[in-house]
Amino acid sequence: MKNFYYSIPTEIFFGKGQIKVLGDQIKKYGTKVLLTYGGGSIKRIGLYDEVVNILKDNGIEFRELGGIDPNPKIDSVREGIKIIRENDIDFILAVGGGSVIDCSKAIAAGYYYQGDPWDFLIRKANVENALPLGTILTIAATGSEMDRIAVISNPETRQKLSFGHISMAPKFSILDPTYTFSLPKNQTAAGVADIMSHTFENYFTLNDGAYLQDRFAEGILKTCIKYGKIAFEEPDNYEARANIMWASSWAINGLLSYGKDVKWSVHAMEHELSAFYDITHGVGLAILTPVWMEYVLDDERVDKFVEYGVNVWDIDRNKDKYEIARLAIDKTRDFFKSIGIPMSLREVGIKEEDLEKMAKACTDNSGGNKIGNFKLLGYEDVLSIYRKAY
Amino acid sequence: MKNFYYSIPTEIFFGKGQIKVLGDQIKKYGTKVLLTYGGGSIKRIGLYDEVVNILKDNGIEFRELGGIDPNPKIDSVREGIKIIRENDIDFILAVGGGSVIDCSKAIAAGYYYQGDPWDFLIRKANVENALPLGTILTIAATGSEMDRIAVISNPETRQKLSFGHISMAPKFSILDPTYTFSLPKNQTAAGVADIMSHTFENYFTLNDGAYLQDRFAEGILKTCIKYGKIAFEEPDNYEARANIMWASSWAINGLLSYGKDVKWSVHAMEHELSAFYDITHGVGLAILTPVWMEYVLDDERVDKFVEYGVNVWDIDRNKDKYEIARLAIDKTRDFFKSIGIPMSLREVGIKEEDLEKMAKACTDNSGGNKIGNFKLLGYEDVLSIYRKAY
Repeated sequence: MKNFYYSIPTEIFFGKGQIKVLGDQIKKYGTKVLLTYGGGSIKRIGLYDEVVNILKDNGIEFRELGGIDPNPKIDSVREGIKIIRENDIDFILAVGGGSVIDCSKAIAAGYYYQGDPWDFLIRKANVENALPLGTILTIAATGSEMDRIAVISNPETRQKLSFGHISMAPKFSILDPTYTFSLPKNQTAAGVADIMSHTFENYFTLNDGAYLQDRFAEGILKTCIKYGKIAFEEPDNYEARANIMWASSWAINGLLSYGKDVKWSVHAMEHELSAFYDITHGVGLAILTPVWMEYVLDDERVDKFVEYGVNVWDIDRNKDKYEIARLAIDKTRDFFKSIGIPMSLREVGIKEEDLEKMAKACTDNSGGNKIGNFKLLGYEDVLSIYRKAY
Repeated sequence: MKNFYYSIPTEIFFGKGQIKVLGDQIKKYGTKVLLTYGGGSIKRIGLYDEVVNILKDNGIEFRELGGIDPNPKIDSVREGIKIIRENDIDFILAVGGGSVIDCSKAIAAGYYYQGDPWDFLIRKANVENALPLGTILTIAATGSEMDRIAVISNPETRQKLSFGHISMAPKFSILDPTYTFSLPKNQTAAGVADIMSHTFENYFTLNDGAYLQDRFAEGILKTCIKYGKIAFEEPDNYEARANIMWASSWAINGLLSYGKDVKWSVHAMEHELSAFYDITHGVGLAILTPVWMEYVLDDERVDKFVEYGVNVWDIDRNKDKYEIARLAIDKTRDFFKSIGIPMSLREVGIKEEDLEKMAKACTDNSGGNKIGNFKLLGYEDVLSIYRKAY
């Protein structure tokens, strides 16, 4: 196990009706709020009205930034910073999923920086501080509610990049599984795929002696497999929604990665799909994951796939190693199919002639270095994986 | 899954050599330190000198409270509070295991209370604040390094009770597995038993829908089983010590219990053994655990034991339910034996004629109510379990 520093400062209020704490929580940190949200689903489920009433009842002034897109754009970040500066706002309340929360984190950090916030993404500037932020989660997926990372897209440069700082971790997050009851099936499925992909990125490493972390990862994967299917079929199954929601936070908040030598690869490949085509992040991940698994499977890595197959999919450990590995990969693909995810890049509208450009961008964004570390992948590898996934 | 509030504010510096952060960390919180420790093992391994040198190099004044006993006594708490008040101390540094840390937490809370600190334990007073506290862990067992609980004994009243408050959670804990290399085998074993018992207490509940939490618990149990044996046989195996140390923190910091309907029972029964005979807590737990399991096994609970046997001990799920359950219990007992733990109350010097008094004290300390909730246990049940464990 490698040395590490661990801190999860976010407080979680989990369960039905936890919004009751909202007023008191906000007042611990601020007096004037920027309320951020996405395309309006929070209005359809009545959550917008509930939040606004709580703010009013508590005498908390607020401004709004709605319409934040999936794969949130740097322009929304710029707009949020402008509203905050013009209105002396001192707290951000993000109501939505990972896109709304990520955008809000970038706004929180950008407030303290006089340059353009895109500078953080291209490492031209470092975050030093951020405004306090709270979240009300409406989709279980990115884990942004309990970590310090933001992923932001720039359509002009066709880049989707990430940055983070401890000050960007939410002060509190309200996780009420009932807010996810009305999610469309495809968003439920994409969220589950995203959680599983975070877990895979942390799990598939070589010989790092972080045994406990990998057992935790298997627990999250088993949770996604069991309850992903149930939530897909019974959208208002509280137990399923609750387990998936809590799994989403733990897949990426550090529990699975600290002490390990983790460098993500499938996310790096998917980010180009979203940057070029704005496709749903979780769908891109689900398409690439089994193909990536097949591509990297070899003698050095087969034992890790055996571990995965036996512990997560309950495959008989007495079978041949490669048979277990291939069965585990097949089961992974079958699971994603079973929750309705299209399993090829072609099906989500990506053009074959763009694969090379995307593979080039992927390694460029890694500074020309190979990506990942379970198995290092260069331009040719990424292109092969895109082609096999086509 | 039940509603819950989750917060783990403790920062962790994990790994070899992390003591390098000590000076800077203390200076974030205080200027004058009470250094607390136990029977002197920290002097034998050179840690005492290292800590003192760091304090001096950083110009941090300090006083000492050494000799804190296992099953720490309320008198040590009173003494610590006195030293702090007489010397204007504003930070406590606990160097040791759960006893030293628990005693230090009670001192930290007692400083702000004008009455006798035992009042907290008998619920005559509530904690409102505590001095900041940091820890350097030297044995993986109680998880006190990352939670808010203290267990304190009162030899006069023969009581061993617990209390806690968010302000008592350590600000930081330094977890360096190499400090546990020189632990005697029996302490290593008792520590592992303690971690497993915390996990069992959180794991064995009925139908609470907290699936994810139970998978995390199984990960901790598998870690203890795999690496407990290795650490017992190869005391300086870093990977084993690291996995056990990190497991100790997560078994009890809330990850396994929030969202579940948990009420501990084996700990309640063991506390009387320690209160009457001052035996090693982990040994008492290991003796009682398999007997308790056999005692509560019935038609309503057998499925939970099947879950345990299949997921933790890899027992064939196609066997008969009760066969799986009994095999799992046998394997639990065999594991404790394999790490040298005596498996009867007789062997640790407890007198048969005291069993009734201890069973009475156990239910008295629960306000006359039955203990636990996986299966409620009254006086006769507790006495039966003590007798079967004799």
